[in-house]
Amino acid sequence: MLKKTLEINGLKKIVVAAGDESLANVLRGQLGLTGTKIGCGQGQCGCCNVIVDGKLTRSCVTKMSKVADNASILTIEGVGTPRDPHPLQMAWMAHGGAQCGFCSPGFIVSSKALLDKDPNPSREAVRDWFQTHRNACRCTGYHQLVDAVLDAAKVVRGEMKKEDLAYKLPADGQIWGGTYPRPSALAKVTGTLDYGADLGLKLPPETLHLALVQAEVSHANILSIDAGEAEKMPGVVKVVTHKDIKGKNRITGLITFPTNLGDGWDRPILCDEKVFQYGDAIAIVCAHTAAQAKAAAAKVKVELEKLPAYMSAPAAMAEDAIEIHPGTPNVYFIQKIAKGADTAPVFAKAAAVASDDFYVGRQPHMPMEPDVGFAFLTPEGKLYIHSKSIGLHLHAAMIAPGLGVDLENLVMVQNPAGGTFGYKFSPTMEALVGAACLATGQPVFLNYDYHQQMTYTGKRSPFFVKMSLAADQEGKLLGMETDWSVDHGPYSEFGDLLTLRGAQFMGAGYDIPNIRGEGRTVCTNHAWGSAFRAYGSPQSEFSSEVLMDELAEKLGMDPLELRYKNVYREGSTTPTGQTPEVYSLPEMLDILRPKYQAALERAKAGSDDKVKRGVGVSVGVYGCGLDGPDASEVQVGLNPDDTVTVYACWQDHGQGADMGALGTAHQALRPLGIAPDRIRLVLNDTALAPNSGPSGGSRQQVVTGRAIQAGCEALLAAMQKPGGGYRTYDEMAAENLPTKYDGKWSAPATACDENAQGSPFSVYMYGVFMSEVAVEPATGQAAVEKMTLVADVGKVNNRLVTDGQLYGGLAQGIGLALSEDFENIKKHSTLVGAGFPYAKQITDDIELIYVETPRPEGPFGAAGVGELPLTSPHAAIINAIYNACGARVTRLPARPDKILAALKG
Amino acid sequence: MLKKTLEINGLKKIVVAAGDESLANVLRGQLGLTGTKIGCGQGQCGCCNVIVDGKLTRSCVTKMSKVADNASILTIEGVGTPRDPHPLQMAWMAHGGAQCGFCSPGFIVSSKALLDKDPNPSREAVRDWFQTHRNACRCTGYHQLVDAVLDAAKVVRGEMKKEDLAYKLPADGQIWGGTYPRPSALAKVTGTLDYGADLGLKLPPETLHLALVQAEVSHANILSIDAGEAEKMPGVVKVVTHKDIKGKNRITGLITFPTNLGDGWDRPILCDEKVFQYGDAIAIVCAHTAAQAKAAAAKVKVELEKLPAYMSAPAAMAEDAIEIHPGTPNVYFIQKIAKGADTAPVFAKAAAVASDDFYVGRQPHMPMEPDVGFAFLTPEGKLYIHSKSIGLHLHAAMIAPGLGVDLENLVMVQNPAGGTFGYKFSPTMEALVGAACLATGQPVFLNYDYHQQMTYTGKRSPFFVKMSLAADQEGKLLGMETDWSVDHGPYSEFGDLLTLRGAQFMGAGYDIPNIRGEGRTVCTNHAWGSAFRAYGSPQSEFSSEVLMDELAEKLGMDPLELRYKNVYREGSTTPTGQTPEVYSLPEMLDILRPKYQAALERAKAGSDDKVKRGVGVSVGVYGCGLDGPDASEVQVGLNPDDTVTVYACWQDHGQGADMGALGTAHQALRPLGIAPDRIRLVLNDTALAPNSGPSGGSRQQVVTGRAIQAGCEALLAAMQKPGGGYRTYDEMAAENLPTKYDGKWSAPATACDENAQGSPFSVYMYGVFMSEVAVEPATGQAAVEKMTLVADVGKVNNRLVTDGQLYGGLAQGIGLALSEDFENIKKHSTLVGAGFPYAKQITDDIELIYVETPRPEGPFGAAGVGELPLTSPHAAIINAIYNACGARVTRLPARPDKILAALKG
Repeated sequence: MLKKTLEINGLKKIVVAAGDESLANVLRGQLGLTGTKIGCGQGQCGCCNVIVDGKLTRSCVTKMSKVADNASILTIEGVGTPRDPHPLQMAWMAHGGAQCGFCSPGFIVSSKALLDKDPNPSREAVRDWFQTHRNACRCTGYHQLVDAVLDAAKVVRGEMKKEDLAYKLPADGQIWGGTYPRPSALAKVTGTLDYGADLGLKLPPETLHLALVQAEVSHANILSIDAGEAEKMPGVVKVVTHKDIKGKNRITGLITFPTNLGDGWDRPILCDEKVFQYGDAIAIVCAHTAAQAKAAAAKVKVELEKLPAYMSAPAAMAEDAIEIHPGTPNVYFIQKIAKGADTAPVFAKAAAVASDDFYVGRQPHMPMEPDVGFAFLTPEGKLYIHSKSIGLHLHAAMIAPGLGVDLENLVMVQNPAGGTFGYKFSPTMEALVGAACLATGQPVFLNYDYHQQMTYTGKRSPFFVKMSLAADQEGKLLGMETDWSVDHGPYSEFGDLLTLRGAQFMGAGYDIPNIRGEGRTVCTNHAWGSAFRAYGSPQSEFSSEVLMDELAEKLGMDPLELRYKNVYREGSTTPTGQTPEVYSLPEMLDILRPKYQAALERAKAGSDDKVKRGVGVSVGVYGCGLDGPDASEVQVGLNPDDTVTVYACWQDHGQGADMGALGTAHQALRPLGIAPDRIRLVLNDTALAPNSGPSGGSRQQVVTGRAIQAGCEALLAAMQKPGGGYRTYDEMAAENLPTKYDGKWSAPATACDENAQGSPFSVYMYGVFMSEVAVEPATGQAAVEKMTLVADVGKVNNRLVTDGQLYGGLAQGIGLALSEDFENIKKHSTLVGAGFPYAKQITDDIELIYVETPRPEGPFGAAGVGELPLTSPHAAIINAIYNACGARVTRLPARPDKILAALKG
Repeated sequence: MLKKTLEINGLKKIVVAAGDESLANVLRGQLGLTGTKIGCGQGQCGCCNVIVDGKLTRSCVTKMSKVADNASILTIEGVGTPRDPHPLQMAWMAHGGAQCGFCSPGFIVSSKALLDKDPNPSREAVRDWFQTHRNACRCTGYHQLVDAVLDAAKVVRGEMKKEDLAYKLPADGQIWGGTYPRPSALAKVTGTLDYGADLGLKLPPETLHLALVQAEVSHANILSIDAGEAEKMPGVVKVVTHKDIKGKNRITGLITFPTNLGDGWDRPILCDEKVFQYGDAIAIVCAHTAAQAKAAAAKVKVELEKLPAYMSAPAAMAEDAIEIHPGTPNVYFIQKIAKGADTAPVFAKAAAVASDDFYVGRQPHMPMEPDVGFAFLTPEGKLYIHSKSIGLHLHAAMIAPGLGVDLENLVMVQNPAGGTFGYKFSPTMEALVGAACLATGQPVFLNYDYHQQMTYTGKRSPFFVKMSLAADQEGKLLGMETDWSVDHGPYSEFGDLLTLRGAQFMGAGYDIPNIRGEGRTVCTNHAWGSAFRAYGSPQSEFSSEVLMDELAEKLGMDPLELRYKNVYREGSTTPTGQTPEVYSLPEMLDILRPKYQAALERAKAGSDDKVKRGVGVSVGVYGCGLDGPDASEVQVGLNPDDTVTVYACWQDHGQGADMGALGTAHQALRPLGIAPDRIRLVLNDTALAPNSGPSGGSRQQVVTGRAIQAGCEALLAAMQKPGGGYRTYDEMAAENLPTKYDGKWSAPATACDENAQGSPFSVYMYGVFMSEVAVEPATGQAAVEKMTLVADVGKVNNRLVTDGQLYGGLAQGIGLALSEDFENIKKHSTLVGAGFPYAKQITDDIELIYVETPRPEGPFGAAGVGELPLTSPHAAIINAIYNACGARVTRLPARPDKILAALKG
């Protein structure tokens, strides 16, 4: 321990702390300044930025012994407050800079340090600053953040007033389609929003801190677990093993398809007989402090018998491979597709056929916030589990039997989440904190470090794809043949669904009359497959969109024109045989064409021996919703103060659930003339809000949006006075009229059959991507210089949110194309190791063009948004690399070595 | 546990808490909002005030289960911030409303609730509000707080600007003698100053919370201590008993007089063989949470053999009384006084003699902040003890041998203290937290509840006094005879010193040529005697000042005129035979006389059968310093940024040590022209600052003030350039001149001899008090309607601080006179039970008149301040009661039953 006097945000503070404790932990855990976030904990993300004696400092890697006595420290709380935000904070809101918001305090503090040095930086200087200081953002793609810094700089320089950055309600009072800042924005940019780790620090003092005992091998039999020594360690209250779990100790996939050869009960909460993947949890140490728990976890002795580890689908499909889950074949689900006529004769007589193999790797989600959660029991015996879950009711049903808890005694709450991008469609630690809470009776808190986040949460499942396309001489597609193997890791949950997505999205966007194919889900020992933005389509559409370019080359056609010829038009059907709800792709390609031609010319002019430039395009399509008659439920209530509350479980990845719900409700309540700040949201607590379904598949704006619309309309109908106008709450009460109304909606869609035919989605999103790249042939280094996205996501609810989704998705597409991977567990388990794209890896030149085709089934014409930008941007990039230098990379990521190899090959 | 969504200071917050936890603990311990303070923890002080849904709420007695979901809570942090203070906070600073500052957040929140309801309250409405809502302040006497609310209300109403409340530096740049707000004021009024309990919540997570096992009897032999069951309780790490203490397990009085019959080693850290008083600590439970520690403490089994408890000096002096400390007589120290001739012949021939017995009771200090402290070990093996100690170096020496720690390995730090008024001149929990830290190796934290504060910290020691005064016909005093027994409780520390104070201050202010008397220190089983403001003088001067009135009556003289005739003039000597350093009392009485005559007329006019009004006066005198050549040491350094730092252990009760040090240093550094905010203070850490002596006896402004003056002068001398002007730091460095200088001063005073003769103090403070009271003869209820104090505390350093000391001391005098007591341990162990004076018990009509006679030995002419107002105000009140209704109360407090009895007798 040491005592220091520090000046923190201008206030003199006495601090007593361990010399080897991090400044971040002291600020957060001891001083309650939880605006400073801990992301990677390794100095790679900048979420923990503070300014120490004028110097931008990563507080997570700064030991207290290195903080000078009397040092002056500025944290986000000292930059500005909700009542008096700094211009940077105002600008961050104005530009939608805070999506999940977890990186916002660190970025804003970083930007403050920049503006303190240079109040007039160029765009590039801002980007350089973010790059140099490793400020990582996974949501925004950085563009809006640079915009925000430049606007704030204007205010700092006195060229603009801070108030000019404030949102102004238009004269007609409508926020739909505008730039109303999301309700959580102010709390996010001021560091006052409590994320899970912040809430964990604010739990009651008797809360136990958890540390996991985890497998460090990928496949093994467990011979014994000995917690004796660990239980005697200081501060340890209990070591929980599978023996302490009262239920089935399994997490069920719940919606396992009938033809799945497994029963869905394959994922242990705590490993009992086997270890199935690296990181598998074997025991949980419950102690008074996190450090005590961690120290004791190292003392739990686990005796293992190592088994061969199958680290890819082909390995697990090998003839001599043993069954990972004994009794269930490693290939446990097969999805066929059959549309139109048999393809063999079609291919035999086609003018042109292109065939290739594709691989899209195990993209890690890399949210800034590592996984975190906690649990506690109420006096009535209800188990509350708080986590980053984006499927609260779903997860409750998935873990309740395993824990041995009745569903009615399990309440799931989503904490504000610092990014999920889909990994939280799977339960991660929910059952672990639940088990520890039940075993000890105490509140428990678990916060993964970034290694755990990387190695023990689900990843995008790699697809091994073989695909052929056939066309006639004019380029009209005649048929498609597909074969895909999905490496889903050891746990089956949603693996069948993902495999179906292959059938639904390979060739999506094009009218392909005849399709035959087969996909399979394969159990392996690598990271379990979980949802990831655009779920299944980045693997599926990468294959068809790169193959379209190969086909165009064979046909001697321009790739854009080949696409133009084949995209959905009146009379087309999707790969599942569905009639599209709108036909906007031709118009979108028409919009892109002149830009494409100009880009080609720019690329040509910009190429020489050292740098080759090229242009690539791709089409992206994704459905909004779960397959079939996806349903959502909300409630809308009038409050005694005549405000309106919307109750929903519209879980937030960071995408903007609050704004989605508010924008939709406000639009639906327009007849009331209610101001947006008089609409309250009660979101994401199963005890308080009904089941609106999980936040996946870009479904919430459509499905829950319609439910909110329905609920608002029901309320309005009840409020309507016979003579016109609307009743107040008091008037409703006086007439004994109910003030709370259900809003329900179910999509007019049908599930796919065994041949993957059906109309699974009532609303789709459409995009046309164009990428401009520069490649250094000498090094194989590729850089995206510009991305253009023509997007039709229907009518736009909120422009800041939608822009944010598109920018951010494109950024993830660049990462997917060029750098991101989680294959080598050791090497790829940090942000840097996994190829996380920092500011300079993401082009600042991103052009978004909206085509707002109203969706008949969307609320006020809206579709979803989130998945579209990650359907196929990587295909456009790969196509552009080929266009630049003739290197065709079909196995992602296209790191320099692969480009070099392709150039040489 | 329960989950609630609350709006806290305008921010939506998720809170998970136990239903039976208090809102105060959740706000402070979980949410880090430590601006809300916990004082009494029983709803009697208002330190914990917050506003819940518009209603002023005592958060310490509000269970979380009673806080409505979605409730809106305003804490002090939401009222205003250091960057943007609320008008109330500005006004609090402008009026010196924050002394110790511990009650300030609660008062300001309370006032906010008032102004929200009524932005134009009258003075009386403000006082009524404070009374109704039980807002307790122990420092200020409330007057300044009412002033502040009324000024803030003007700002709220738009009649004044907030900026008008800000301090303005005068044109000449001098702050000495002005109203510069104390450096800690802003932090205090915004709730951002961390007191001990706040720091305790901000300690590292491995910190252990302590609970004491305490005696519930007053005198017993300990037969056995069994901690077996307790050590098995949840969260318990260790139960520390006397066996774990490596040192002598005794706290030494250190400066025990040579003629003391005890050796000073009578106070155990943890009781081993005996219990000496109620509350004595027998064991310390160290656990992970406070609740766990408390639960386990109840399981420690202590077997006792009860012994007779001697609860007063006469009881312990009875012949059959056993020795409380075997081997040491219960009367263990005798102090004689002999001045001039033998008094027997003088009394025999005197024209008038007055004699009476007096008793001043066990006044409890009742600071708003209960005692609190913590300890930790550094990697170098230094034991740090943080507490409310007002004598850091003294306490280190007092506890080190008991703990078995080398003095060089013991660092004492004072936390910002929420009031001590002297009780922290004794170590309280320092050795306890030290012992627990040494036994566990972990940081430890201990926070008394208010019962512990009342029952297990020292109290003012009652004096049983017999006194006679003799005068000639004209009223000239001829002699005094005194006999006093001091009930010092079971522990001897400073008991001899206190007994000497009787000799020094009985009859102080008057030239009494002949004195004989004897005082004795008596060991009892009631609360141990500790310092309390005006230490010894309220007991001593109560006797002589009431007896002066009795003598005046016998002489048929006006009491003021009798005093006027006898106060110090050229040629006079004090009771110890010292020549006073100034003679301001005649002038002060001259100033008071017309006011006194007007008051007498008012009283006469205002009296009827139901209410009798009267006027009383008294003279108060107290010395500034410890006896004899009291010394202090500081350092003054020039910093690289050309600011100056003063290093001192000028401990703060709440009286304004920071302002004392700053004002003195700024005045000494005036030749530099340095701005006050460029003088830094490093105070109250024995590792960082030298021994400036304890903060008692109003010594610091004089003794440490002179040391600061000396240090500043040394620095200035070194900085002075040959050609005029002063060197900068860089210039000093270039010339290799030292930049840090010692400042030392030692008082030109001599200790008293065995006859209490000597010149113990180099500077005295003088006061003349006038009290106007109203008494209801039917009920015996007395109320002080006005207090006037003519004070000569030399030149005033800071008017806000000095006013604050005088107001606050007078308020404690009213309490001492009429209500305060700690005799009945059960009944008197709460604020209300002990007669704490709330706003309406303290008159709003207090007149302060300064006579600023420069003190030759004071820095820039200043004397001390703090003790003066509590020397004899209670005597003026008691004299006024007699003047009103003829009831002479000589045993305090003068509660209605005593007045009634005196009226009847």
